[in-house]
Amino acid sequence: MNTSIFPASSFAALRARLAALPVFDEGAAQAARGRQASLTKPPGSLGRLEDVALFMAGWRGEARPRIGKAQALVFAGNHGVCAQGVNPYPQEVTVQMVANFQAGGAAINQLCRASGAELSVVALELERPTGDFTQGAAMSEEEVLAAMAQGAAAVDAGADILLLGEMGIGNSTVAAALATALFGGAATDWAGPGTGSDQAGMSRKILAIETGLARHEAVRQDPLAVLAAFGGREQAAICGAILAARAARIPVLLDGFICTAAAAVLERLGVGALEHCLAGHVSAEPGHKRLLEALGKAPLLALDMRLGEGSGAAVALGVVRAALAAHNGMSTFAEAGVSGA
Amino acid sequence: MNTSIFPASSFAALRARLAALPVFDEGAAQAARGRQASLTKPPGSLGRLEDVALFMAGWRGEARPRIGKAQALVFAGNHGVCAQGVNPYPQEVTVQMVANFQAGGAAINQLCRASGAELSVVALELERPTGDFTQGAAMSEEEVLAAMAQGAAAVDAGADILLLGEMGIGNSTVAAALATALFGGAATDWAGPGTGSDQAGMSRKILAIETGLARHEAVRQDPLAVLAAFGGREQAAICGAILAARAARIPVLLDGFICTAAAAVLERLGVGALEHCLAGHVSAEPGHKRLLEALGKAPLLALDMRLGEGSGAAVALGVVRAALAAHNGMSTFAEAGVSGA
Repeated sequence: MNTSIFPASSFAALRARLAALPVFDEGAAQAARGRQASLTKPPGSLGRLEDVALFMAGWRGEARPRIGKAQALVFAGNHGVCAQGVNPYPQEVTVQMVANFQAGGAAINQLCRASGAELSVVALELERPTGDFTQGAAMSEEEVLAAMAQGAAAVDAGADILLLGEMGIGNSTVAAALATALFGGAATDWAGPGTGSDQAGMSRKILAIETGLARHEAVRQDPLAVLAAFGGREQAAICGAILAARAARIPVLLDGFICTAAAAVLERLGVGALEHCLAGHVSAEPGHKRLLEALGKAPLLALDMRLGEGSGAAVALGVVRAALAAHNGMSTFAEAGVSGA
Repeated sequence: MNTSIFPASSFAALRARLAALPVFDEGAAQAARGRQASLTKPPGSLGRLEDVALFMAGWRGEARPRIGKAQALVFAGNHGVCAQGVNPYPQEVTVQMVANFQAGGAAINQLCRASGAELSVVALELERPTGDFTQGAAMSEEEVLAAMAQGAAAVDAGADILLLGEMGIGNSTVAAALATALFGGAATDWAGPGTGSDQAGMSRKILAIETGLARHEAVRQDPLAVLAAFGGREQAAICGAILAARAARIPVLLDGFICTAAAAVLERLGVGALEHCLAGHVSAEPGHKRLLEALGKAPLLALDMRLGEGSGAAVALGVVRAALAAHNGMSTFAEAGVSGA
């Protein structure tokens, strides 16, 4: 998908384009609200399903939005910070899991099939991990912009909703570093066990984050520079995909802690860049709940999942489909001849 | 579906049969647990999806259970207590909504279509409301047993999962009365706005429950007599369907407050009659959370829904489908050539 946002030659050029992002269509949402009030149920009784229907209406610009195509995008990257022993799995697992995605054997493949999403996996230079953020910047400005453009290019302009996920050994460390840099607090507030770190692994993770924060203190007020400092490519690609989806008025379902931490970079730019994004779920990774609260996003699901890959977003798609099925398919009181209160 | 439980000639005969209910198949669950441990994900990272897969395995008695047929049953009844002005909608809405279900225009029709459930609606003598429980027993023992047998007969023995729902103007008052009688506390602990009672309506609702509790104080230690005292037919039918499902090892997804309050009658019999039931969601009706806590059941969803009809169970079916899709379809570490931790 080609958008007016990417390619961008610099962070400054990118920022300048964000003022022109499309906004929520209040007229379409109002028409959807009127329809909801006429349907054969007590007002408000479908709870968040009603909210989701209005959200979809406003972003798609239609009173009765439908999901023809649901696209799931999983971005994969490798991370220099793995040199600090932050993850119990060897780094080659990233490549192996991408092969598993491509062969159809991973959780996300089954969950996309179950909820009717079309999955694409984008591997981002796995043979070339980003820099170790304890030693220097994970990526240059050019590398960030290139990964963002790849993320944006992967978005299908014909999709009615976009699900975002990631894979990358070590990237819960990257996510915790991003969250700490962007929102403050201690590394221990944001770092969790990820794929299953033991206590020694957790200590290495915390130390790596603290070392990185000290090293990159000077750029903490600049969210895009924070992204370059800590990485990685899949986080940048998620940001690019979110912006490309926004340009095409495609609503986004965010996944877990790592996906949300990437998205948080855009939120901190202060232009409402995540208004078209729903939190698919809150994961068992402790920092995710805190992060969603910081973003003001209430998750659709809370199933103690902590896999990533877009798995929580894929399950949440079922809730969005349910919301639109009720919104579009129900009879009104007048059509059904049902008496009101 | 004919089971060995129904018809029953008396509450005593019914109780005698409950000792022989099938139990959870630990062997099948253990085989499912072994499979989960081999799949390409960190152990436990699918959270409640893993629990649901093991639950389904144990009740279906298979290491890799599948949902071929999902049946949704909605029972409808009318209630004498409506004479006390407990509901803002006129009682003819029950018949009108049954017609809406049959015409395919209600929320539950759309939600079943979205999640792949086959819906049947059973209207229980709508022209003959149960007795007003403030004046006497809502039903006789024979009426309760007949409605239970109708509920049991409606269960499809070929189903792999059963979703239960209800419709009946006034039945949130019945549910609150049942919950108060079964679990104690004050009527105000259990009664909520239901379809949308205002303050005056809430006062009438509370008064009706308190009046009924005083009148039927003598039977509060006998859960089946409590069901007869407060009604209604759809609550009895839900109990019958739950028992018939159990006899056929069909797991059940409960819906909201009213469905759960009906099921609670069986729980209070003390034979583990709800072990094969999952709480599909927790509704916005305040008593539901308290009731699920009393039953020790953690809901799959919390979407502020409060419609009934089986709507929460229908959305939750998507989560169960996701759980089994991952459980049955994922590759193992060995199959995918992925390195372990």
